[in-house]
Amino acid sequence: MVRLFDEPGTRGSEPLLIASLLRTPLATAPHQQIVYRDVARYDYLTLRTRIGKLAHALSELGISAGDTVAVMDWDSNRYLESYFAIPMMGAVLMTVNLRLSPAQIAYTLQRAEARVVLVHHDFVPLLTELRAQLPLVTQTVLLEPDAADECPIGPRRLDYEDLLAVADADFAFGEFDERAVATTFFTTGTTGMPKAVCFSHRQIMIHTLAVLGALASPQHGQSFRQGDVYMPMTPMFHVHAWGLPYVATLLGVKQVYPGRYEPARLLALREREGVSYSHCVPTILQMLLDAPQSATTDLRGWKVTVGGAALGESLARAALARGMDVFAAYGMSETCPFLTATRLTGGDQSADGAAEITRRCRTGLPAPLVDLRIVDEQMQEVAHDGETMGELVVRTPWLTGGYVNDPTATAELWHGGYLHTRDIATIDQQGVVQIRDRLKDVIKTGGEWISSLLLEDLIGRHADVGEVAVIGIADDRWGERPVAVVVARAATVDHLDAAALRQHLAAFVLAGQIPKYAVPERFEFVASIPKTSVGKIDKKHLRAMLNSNVSPSAN
Amino acid sequence: MVRLFDEPGTRGSEPLLIASLLRTPLATAPHQQIVYRDVARYDYLTLRTRIGKLAHALSELGISAGDTVAVMDWDSNRYLESYFAIPMMGAVLMTVNLRLSPAQIAYTLQRAEARVVLVHHDFVPLLTELRAQLPLVTQTVLLEPDAADECPIGPRRLDYEDLLAVADADFAFGEFDERAVATTFFTTGTTGMPKAVCFSHRQIMIHTLAVLGALASPQHGQSFRQGDVYMPMTPMFHVHAWGLPYVATLLGVKQVYPGRYEPARLLALREREGVSYSHCVPTILQMLLDAPQSATTDLRGWKVTVGGAALGESLARAALARGMDVFAAYGMSETCPFLTATRLTGGDQSADGAAEITRRCRTGLPAPLVDLRIVDEQMQEVAHDGETMGELVVRTPWLTGGYVNDPTATAELWHGGYLHTRDIATIDQQGVVQIRDRLKDVIKTGGEWISSLLLEDLIGRHADVGEVAVIGIADDRWGERPVAVVVARAATVDHLDAAALRQHLAAFVLAGQIPKYAVPERFEFVASIPKTSVGKIDKKHLRAMLNSNVSPSAN
Repeated sequence: MVRLFDEPGTRGSEPLLIASLLRTPLATAPHQQIVYRDVARYDYLTLRTRIGKLAHALSELGISAGDTVAVMDWDSNRYLESYFAIPMMGAVLMTVNLRLSPAQIAYTLQRAEARVVLVHHDFVPLLTELRAQLPLVTQTVLLEPDAADECPIGPRRLDYEDLLAVADADFAFGEFDERAVATTFFTTGTTGMPKAVCFSHRQIMIHTLAVLGALASPQHGQSFRQGDVYMPMTPMFHVHAWGLPYVATLLGVKQVYPGRYEPARLLALREREGVSYSHCVPTILQMLLDAPQSATTDLRGWKVTVGGAALGESLARAALARGMDVFAAYGMSETCPFLTATRLTGGDQSADGAAEITRRCRTGLPAPLVDLRIVDEQMQEVAHDGETMGELVVRTPWLTGGYVNDPTATAELWHGGYLHTRDIATIDQQGVVQIRDRLKDVIKTGGEWISSLLLEDLIGRHADVGEVAVIGIADDRWGERPVAVVVARAATVDHLDAAALRQHLAAFVLAGQIPKYAVPERFEFVASIPKTSVGKIDKKHLRAMLNSNVSPSAN
Repeated sequence: MVRLFDEPGTRGSEPLLIASLLRTPLATAPHQQIVYRDVARYDYLTLRTRIGKLAHALSELGISAGDTVAVMDWDSNRYLESYFAIPMMGAVLMTVNLRLSPAQIAYTLQRAEARVVLVHHDFVPLLTELRAQLPLVTQTVLLEPDAADECPIGPRRLDYEDLLAVADADFAFGEFDERAVATTFFTTGTTGMPKAVCFSHRQIMIHTLAVLGALASPQHGQSFRQGDVYMPMTPMFHVHAWGLPYVATLLGVKQVYPGRYEPARLLALREREGVSYSHCVPTILQMLLDAPQSATTDLRGWKVTVGGAALGESLARAALARGMDVFAAYGMSETCPFLTATRLTGGDQSADGAAEITRRCRTGLPAPLVDLRIVDEQMQEVAHDGETMGELVVRTPWLTGGYVNDPTATAELWHGGYLHTRDIATIDQQGVVQIRDRLKDVIKTGGEWISSLLLEDLIGRHADVGEVAVIGIADDRWGERPVAVVVARAATVDHLDAAALRQHLAAFVLAGQIPKYAVPERFEFVASIPKTSVGKIDKKHLRAMLNSNVSPSAN
């Protein structure tokens, strides 16, 4: 038996609560700034005062420990205040995913049992439309309202700034169990309604410290440290804005909140406020580089973590050409989200920069305390050779315990004691991880796995190919075989054929980039490829059509 | 009631155990080196193998969870292995303070119930002499023995390397409660026998992450990051070598262990291995600078955290002149130990360097999650003006819960819900802390506090003063009044008098450096000042003598 010295919550073992993130910044950077567009600019002391006032105001509205308060806002100082005040009360912060359909938003608010909703002017019409479906909501509080706005729910219109103006700042935040739920939000799967995940104070605190360790410690840039100026470019309603607002606050750095993402505004804030660290998905980075204002904005030294989707080499090259320090990171809703980030080592900075760009686009290295494994279907670790593919599974102290009220999905997620990301990856001898495909899209043939994304990339390099999708189709002998669905470029639609593409792929077999068995027997030439509502290739649809031998052309 | 989502130790809330510090280095830096003098050089994979072998060997000797294993060694790779293997078994690592007297060492081993002692050749005679006082020890294991060494305790001589050579590496480290005691050691107070403190896995883990955050994130140096080469210069038997071996391992950096501290060897290792980050007490830094080999060693860029005693400006200046990046930090045995470290901001790097040196010598800024307060005797916070003195008290998740089996001392330590450091300090508006005195030495007069150390510094600047001690003596009207005990320089012993020193101090009153009431009425001129066995001024002795009106001259 181990010796236990003390109980948690007593002397020497105080609980890990979000409130304690404010300690060092209030002591060491009390006058550092928090900026919201042209709307607000104040210091950390004021932030702390407003957090107390918000808690007091919510408490007056009947919110106490265990109750859920939902926020529907773009990135703002008020969202930052909610990130602290609501969990510090022992209440639950629900970050409403604004990209869901109205029906889904109503569903998620109802399932999370939101009592009060803080809502930006832009979403007042939506919430008004949904009010009949939200019997548990007792009051909405308006963020940045127009004078004419009516309050969607509640006996009278309440405005956030009015409430804070009269609220007592001296809210008595108590101490409680670190396993208390701090936040909740809904993940959007490809099937069914969104599923809820929760994160506790303990999980968010350990996540914050580990992400700080991961991002503060690199040797050659790709870092987030004291002296930086922070601006999020992944939304605060999406997985805690990757947890970075908590890290930024702990660091006591200047924070800039841009509201709704508009490239011109993001670039203007970058310039005016001296933003030096941000994070975004590749699409936002592309938008920034393409914006007319980009040409006249100095982007040099801007460190940007890119995640949510793979950072492509051409996009990375374009950003590097502008002097940006872009680098990939990886995580998901179920993982709080941070799992890996890439970083350069001395050896990556080769003369032609090619190795450096490759490294910057890698999925990256595990953060401190992340037990990351690439496993086969028997949960055995695959070779660390950068080639053998397996599913990426993880353990670390900040993963969601499961989906709320969904034991079946939870059991699948945690099958074998590890959280299953459903991503297929490789890992090399230096621990560098590379996502190769989604588990549902990888092609399992003759006991080996082939990445559909890699085949799509290689086929797509043929000059006559306009678009391509590769999916696995059931095969009696091999389990599955790859089938390529190809849209020829308009000019070449008549002479592109399977033989030409097989010959094209043979060169990559010869070069050792793919095994011989990866070359599809079957190529389907179509006029267009079916897409989902968000514009992604609809592989589920394609697979169903190919299996039923229907021609996979979209209408 | 807050909502609890999950129990610790289950899915998504895995316990914080020391074993998980090895995850990222094993994945990302498997071939990074661990070096011990000219004795050992191997990689992290080998470190992990040897940790498994050590656990297996200890288990064969009857050690299991909850048992104490003591280590008596200089800084070595084997000590590092013990830092992991013993706690990872659920057993307790006792780091034996080699500076204690033989009787105290026997007392501490017996009180900690050590079963097995890993002992370096240098301490074999001592342990042989003590064996009759150690009935609980069943076996000693020899580290770096001579062929002729006999085993102090146990049925037969066992050598560490022999045990590892035959041990199975595949020890099954289990998962257990993060509150399990991981380490124990004894603090040396000025009175009575040493008192034991313990630290749990949880405390050490949060400490490791917070210290990483504190040391990796500074903007202008004073950092410890990836790419650094680590060498401790505060002993591994002293408060986890400030916790840095755990941080170094988590970072996956090259680690260099120097054995017993000899300036020539430390400098040679610095040069040969490229050491870039270390930590030490001021005495060691002074020894390094004074060593004959120092002149021919390039010290540029060596980042050195200095703690244990105040970093003096003249020493800091000498180190900076050699290109070292020296900076102060603060903590104590009861605090794991890290609480603060200083760091430069842009504004400190003034043209003449004076502000920079002052800043480098400050006690520093609180580390992440440290709730640090400077309080008066009613536990009320004093002004953050850099001048008002109070006792430094702290809360943070890595403080000892108390002294083992000593409820009275524990209650004093934790009086009012904060850990009392018994240090008197100031804090300024930027959160910069400066220790001014020990609580027992500060002079309380007319409701105000005067630092005895400051008065000693100012009086000592008089050209005719050889040595000086200032203590508080009970006073009916003021509570206490300062009394200066002065040793004149030999050449000036006849003409130095109280009037001259009062006039000398009047200049500092005029300059606003001390208040008028800080100037002592009473000066005692003596031939020498009594010292303790470790060479510190014996203020307790002085105070007793002055209170009884005995002349305070030492014999």
